[in-house]
Amino acid sequence: MTTACVREVGLRDGLQLAASRLDTDTKLDWIRQQAAAGFREIEITSFVPPSLLPQFSDAAEVVAGANAVADLTSVSLVLNVKGADRAIAAGARHITYVVSASEAHSQSNVRCSTQEALDRFPIVMALARDAGVFAGAAISTAFGCSLQGAVPDQQVLSLVSSLSEYGAGEITLADTVGFASPRDVTRLFRGAAERTERPLGAHFHDTRGLGLANVVAALDTGVRHFDASLGGLGGCPFAPGASGNIATEDCVYLLESLGVHTGVSIDAMIALRQQLAVWLPDEALTGKLALAGPARTFSTASVA
Amino acid sequence: MTTACVREVGLRDGLQLAASRLDTDTKLDWIRQQAAAGFREIEITSFVPPSLLPQFSDAAEVVAGANAVADLTSVSLVLNVKGADRAIAAGARHITYVVSASEAHSQSNVRCSTQEALDRFPIVMALARDAGVFAGAAISTAFGCSLQGAVPDQQVLSLVSSLSEYGAGEITLADTVGFASPRDVTRLFRGAAERTERPLGAHFHDTRGLGLANVVAALDTGVRHFDASLGGLGGCPFAPGASGNIATEDCVYLLESLGVHTGVSIDAMIALRQQLAVWLPDEALTGKLALAGPARTFSTASVA
Repeated sequence: MTTACVREVGLRDGLQLAASRLDTDTKLDWIRQQAAAGFREIEITSFVPPSLLPQFSDAAEVVAGANAVADLTSVSLVLNVKGADRAIAAGARHITYVVSASEAHSQSNVRCSTQEALDRFPIVMALARDAGVFAGAAISTAFGCSLQGAVPDQQVLSLVSSLSEYGAGEITLADTVGFASPRDVTRLFRGAAERTERPLGAHFHDTRGLGLANVVAALDTGVRHFDASLGGLGGCPFAPGASGNIATEDCVYLLESLGVHTGVSIDAMIALRQQLAVWLPDEALTGKLALAGPARTFSTASVA
Repeated sequence: MTTACVREVGLRDGLQLAASRLDTDTKLDWIRQQAAAGFREIEITSFVPPSLLPQFSDAAEVVAGANAVADLTSVSLVLNVKGADRAIAAGARHITYVVSASEAHSQSNVRCSTQEALDRFPIVMALARDAGVFAGAAISTAFGCSLQGAVPDQQVLSLVSSLSEYGAGEITLADTVGFASPRDVTRLFRGAAERTERPLGAHFHDTRGLGLANVVAALDTGVRHFDASLGGLGGCPFAPGASGNIATEDCVYLLESLGVHTGVSIDAMIALRQQLAVWLPDEALTGKLALAGPARTFSTASVA
């Protein structure tokens, strides 16, 4: 039986640029309900300066609450050493360190070069190891960047090699701005798999409608970890109505329909998505499955 | 160079269930602008009783107008012998005859069994041959049916064999209700290709978000003809907000990003899609590309 893990990132990537705010109790309710629906990994927050992203000012409280949820890997994003320090001090057990493959995006996002961001990763790894914390890495703008345009494959693959050598427990290639095509996905993930034996994850946006086709392409190269955001939460602030992350419910439905077991209850997931629309009435949600429901002929991979 | 044909079906499948109406002049304007954007095939109307679908009461006028557009294959849908008669009398040069693979859908749609509908096809073929008209066939509900549920592959493949033997110039497998997964698409199109040497076409709906992933799966089996509807026009009347056909602009963008040449101008296509929103202000359009625009790194297959 083929299995895959869909990691919910709505609480981080979905909320990151949202105008709406969720209070801590609602975030923890979301996390608990999503875990109860069968999700085993949730990216719960980002340790960034609260002055920059006030929606994550409760990061420590969210970590503490999520740590009480059984059978759940709660992931905290960190962008620098200080963030890693804070996350570990808050009790985070799994952190993801982000490096931008695009120089322009790196400067804009963390005000340092890609090389400088990479050079900080061994320090983050050392902190994590000392604390018994799992540390993975994500390469953002791996498929191109709105600021810089194209990002050479060689730049991304070199990062994969370095992050792997430094001990990253998993490496995610992120299509931060929705530039990837299935052809790009096949090429870059194949190249990455040649450079590391760590598990590779895929983080796709559906900005131009190719998100789920990209999931299939990544799956075909052997990827078994997919980030997704419930209701596609997290549209692009620069293109009103445009989509951000692929919708969790559509991604799970796609995988199950391909015979890939996710462990997720479709009904519970759709119910939670409807709840999300109540929590965030001013956010535009996307995704098709919640509107139409599963096909009458659909059965989950665990049944098929 | 790999090439594929995206056949616009918005004027037929898109308008079929729409509450809004387009007058004949606007339809012809749409057809001309879409042809000018590089589309070579457009399904322009359906020869059904005007009492059933008044939006197609101008079918003969639309055929006459479309016939004046250079370098365009204008396709008319027909559901029975009388429809074929009317289409040919109106000057149609390319007709598509529809057979439902689902018995329940066949009874509901054309009030006869699948076998009876199949038995009429040789009569339609004879009429078309006598008039020098190209006749293709489409198998609707090929991937399942809301009324009946599952449709056995064998039923669909048997229809492919029969329609091919009767001389259908092309055969389209239609996922009328959006039940297909990429796995289903691979299996059924491979089976169909074993049973006929006629060109196979794919007609996918995006009801559950899998439409473009299904296009990739069909492409990988050798399919080079794809139906699509501009702006995804043609939502499901039974599920408000749910999607109908895959959006033409996203389908073209996907194919071009895979290096498959469609001959379509992305800019002209997006401009026409914005015009469509003006023509049909009360219809919900879907599709992602028109909101976000092509990726900064995108180049059409003809350039790449």
